[in-house]
Amino acid sequence: MSVEIDLKGLGVIVTASSRGIGFNVARELLKRNARVVISSRSEENLKKALDELSPLGEVYAVKTNLCDQRDLENLVKESWELLGGVGALVWNAGNVRCEPCLLHEAGYDDWVEAAKLHAVAPGYLTTLLVQTWLEGKRKGVLVYLNSVSIKEPMPPLVLADVTRAGLVQLAKSVSRTYGKHGIRAYSVLLGSFDTPGARENLKAVAESRGEIFEETWEREVLGRTPLHRTGGWDELGSLVAFLLSDEAEYMLGSTVVIDGAMTRGINL
Amino acid sequence: MSVEIDLKGLGVIVTASSRGIGFNVARELLKRNARVVISSRSEENLKKALDELSPLGEVYAVKTNLCDQRDLENLVKESWELLGGVGALVWNAGNVRCEPCLLHEAGYDDWVEAAKLHAVAPGYLTTLLVQTWLEGKRKGVLVYLNSVSIKEPMPPLVLADVTRAGLVQLAKSVSRTYGKHGIRAYSVLLGSFDTPGARENLKAVAESRGEIFEETWEREVLGRTPLHRTGGWDELGSLVAFLLSDEAEYMLGSTVVIDGAMTRGINL
Amino acid sequence: MSVEIDLKGLGVIVTASSRGIGFNVARELLKRNARVVISSRSEENLKKALDELSPLGEVYAVKTNLCDQRDLENLVKESWELLGGVGALVWNAGNVRCEPCLLHEAGYDDWVEAAKLHAVAPGYLTTLLVQTWLEGKRKGVLVYLNSVSIKEPMPPLVLADVTRAGLVQLAKSVSRTYGKHGIRAYSVLLGSFDTPGARENLKAVAESRGEIFEETWEREVLGRTPLHRTGGWDELGSLVAFLLSDEAEYMLGSTVVIDGAMTRGINL
Amino acid sequence: MSVEIDLKGLGVIVTASSRGIGFNVARELLKRNARVVISSRSEENLKKALDELSPLGEVYAVKTNLCDQRDLENLVKESWELLGGVGALVWNAGNVRCEPCLLHEAGYDDWVEAAKLHAVAPGYLTTLLVQTWLEGKRKGVLVYLNSVSIKEPMPPLVLADVTRAGLVQLAKSVSRTYGKHGIRAYSVLLGSFDTPGARENLKAVAESRGEIFEETWEREVLGRTPLHRTGGWDELGSLVAFLLSDEAEYMLGSTVVIDGAMTRGINL
Repeated sequence: MSVEIDLKGLGVIVTASSRGIGFNVARELLKRNARVVISSRSEENLKKALDELSPLGEVYAVKTNLCDQRDLENLVKESWELLGGVGALVWNAGNVRCEPCLLHEAGYDDWVEAAKLHAVAPGYLTTLLVQTWLEGKRKGVLVYLNSVSIKEPMPPLVLADVTRAGLVQLAKSVSRTYGKHGIRAYSVLLGSFDTPGARENLKAVAESRGEIFEETWEREVLGRTPLHRTGGWDELGSLVAFLLSDEAEYMLGSTVVIDGAMTRGINL
Repeated sequence: MSVEIDLKGLGVIVTASSRGIGFNVARELLKRNARVVISSRSEENLKKALDELSPLGEVYAVKTNLCDQRDLENLVKESWELLGGVGALVWNAGNVRCEPCLLHEAGYDDWVEAAKLHAVAPGYLTTLLVQTWLEGKRKGVLVYLNSVSIKEPMPPLVLADVTRAGLVQLAKSVSRTYGKHGIRAYSVLLGSFDTPGARENLKAVAESRGEIFEETWEREVLGRTPLHRTGGWDELGSLVAFLLSDEAEYMLGSTVVIDGAMTRGINL
Repeated sequence: MSVEIDLKGLGVIVTASSRGIGFNVARELLKRNARVVISSRSEENLKKALDELSPLGEVYAVKTNLCDQRDLENLVKESWELLGGVGALVWNAGNVRCEPCLLHEAGYDDWVEAAKLHAVAPGYLTTLLVQTWLEGKRKGVLVYLNSVSIKEPMPPLVLADVTRAGLVQLAKSVSRTYGKHGIRAYSVLLGSFDTPGARENLKAVAESRGEIFEETWEREVLGRTPLHRTGGWDELGSLVAFLLSDEAEYMLGSTVVIDGAMTRGINL
Repeated sequence: MSVEIDLKGLGVIVTASSRGIGFNVARELLKRNARVVISSRSEENLKKALDELSPLGEVYAVKTNLCDQRDLENLVKESWELLGGVGALVWNAGNVRCEPCLLHEAGYDDWVEAAKLHAVAPGYLTTLLVQTWLEGKRKGVLVYLNSVSIKEPMPPLVLADVTRAGLVQLAKSVSRTYGKHGIRAYSVLLGSFDTPGARENLKAVAESRGEIFEETWEREVLGRTPLHRTGGWDELGSLVAFLLSDEAEYMLGSTVVIDGAMTRGINL
């Protein structure tokens, strides 16, 4: 069996994409002939990522602090110029500093940082892109990468879970309000993928419990899915590319779970 | 943009497939190189469907009353022989006789018929296939086509909605229990597709309200989605083929909505 | 703090109420001045239950096989006569025979039994009561007791979970269709309560795994909730009585979870 | 039928309570013998509210800008002193300035304001109270009043819906993490209640569409529920008091919908 998706030059912004999930999604989209702008706060990481991705296709980097208004505006503007028009956004975000941290350990600034990163940034980027698409009478697609932990909240991720939960509502709202103008949005809820961030999180958990990392990884990550593995980048890439393609138009507004059946709960 | 999915001879049973949704999904899967068994209670409809589908690929017909135990067992057995092994089931069901009917108009037999068609039949077919796959140490995929009306129940479909709702739980349960054996299941919730059944339902609604059919169709079907159209068979076919493919393995257990954002509610 | 609910003679049918959840709910409602009809297949159990409940208030017993059409019709008719009108139904059901059993172990008859008990019986009872209430221009309340395992399906309960899932849709549908006539319905999803049935289920699980019952109970029941206890009958009784009371009218159609936060998933 | 709940001096903070939902909930809780701190940004509104509530029981006012860190800290500290310990928080929030406003009309500051009000403020208040309860080894209850529009997002409320959605995750997370310490949390999703804010929102909608207010109210508010009325303050008060009482302990972490079946979607 084979699935071949050709995005034929679609211009896509992928945020938080110098490493981890964002980076791998950017790579998968490039393989499927998207043209991609990657972004990160770290110039150094961006450069490294760009070097690795450039052989795969047309890719640019725009340094962006997702918690900064001007940077968000610049990301849209510069991407538009670099790509000659932006057709899609794949939203991804890294971890906030205080993470893993429990609710009673958080400060006001931690809450503000989480809200700015996980709600304000994707919200305002959506506003900016929808404005631009409406003005230019162009179609556009938004895919919000999110975590299944918003379905089954995890204590050490509580600030992220509370602030990013609403992206599901955002995708639905955008689709119902602007669908008639060819603007559509989707939520993708990810289970466990093997990223530096996931490993760091689990290491912190393991340390706080005095456990060996591999055992924590086995129990908390692999052992929680019947497939006993993390998700494949090719699988995630196919799914995101499928949602970006015209074939997924009628699915607008929906939430798709890709978690190896890690969550016990149905999604409805 | 293009999405090309090649199912490379995968053997698939599609139930209730002599017309409407089942028929169109069968056709889309044939186009993507699946080998298909279609089924229906009506020999005449089956013959007509077979004539139309045969030019597209390897397709067989097995006459099946989904409310009959022996017929269900025969469907699995005969499909297995015809296809040399069954790799997947795409569950679809027609309407029960008392439909559209309101809750207070239903008789005991109507409830039994709805339960046998919408819960017992897919449940027992799943049991039979899982048994066979476990015994033969083979992989298998189950896709339950269902309606978004299980998210937002519609009064005249109440018997169907109540009895088919649990297919979402079935997909999750199968995936978590048998995922480690390579058996995975999905729910697909459909919005409005242009089928004879949908038109008949709306005609009954229009008549009961003394309305013109086209106006009811416009308001209740087209007007309820921001895209102002019914779903395309190519879109549904792509989605089902994607779920059947190996690329969707990590999505096992999930529910996918394809409804043109007709439902107001988020799915989570 | 205190919660005092007085149902002032409300006539309530509680099904499957000679022991376990149904029995305890009947007792709690009697304490709050409801007048109650209990039912069970077993004449012996009914008699025992009636003896225990009679000192608490006005209570009757109607022998009922919930899988039999005539028995369901008789239950409504006889309860109406005994109570001089039925104001509410609290639906509860016992276990099907093949339970705990895994999906691949079920026979056709097991599926039919589960569907008849968990979908047809509450569906048809609802039809009968709604008919009667509409004809008599009377108000009525339906409370469907269900399990949180429909949110997070449990492999050994799969037949029950698949067939009873739709009661949530039933409550919503009844409320939206007949709410204007004063008929309202609710779903209550129960976590772990200490019943003979729950203990038998866990015993079967423990035996099948070669474990000591107490350890299975500790891990699978107590250990899964942060409160580390099963639910109290007074808590469940208060909740059901609250839903039956006029105070809950505006909550019609909703689903209430009472599970000691056993489920990891949000309910939305 | 009657429901009598006596909160016997429980100390409760109700936010945004000088008018509308918060004010009415404060009044209902006072009637049920809670001792209450109300809060508002407006000194004038607070004074008016205090005058109206004082005859009903022990009530205090603490001027609070919910978007200000020091004010949040002061609200907890001062309430603790005034009440001699805080046993519960009923979270409520008013509208953000840009409301009703569509997504493409929002500015960065609007997104920040919405996030601070609807996510950071309840998040940080929860942090502060959980810290205090843990330190003092005291029990505590959190009830987050929210809107059913997070289930079925409304275009003109998109900023609020996106930012307050996560309170459902917050309630679940708090309950699962701190339930063993006697700390429990609930979400309450409100449909239409007759408040100045709701009327103002609808007036803006009516004006923007050139409609008469009463017609918009009839169609968008009354006409959307089968009960054809807004919710009663006594109903909401009973529900909140029930959740605050010990009787609701086993319901911790759950979401309760009180919307007159306005939403078409099931909640699960």
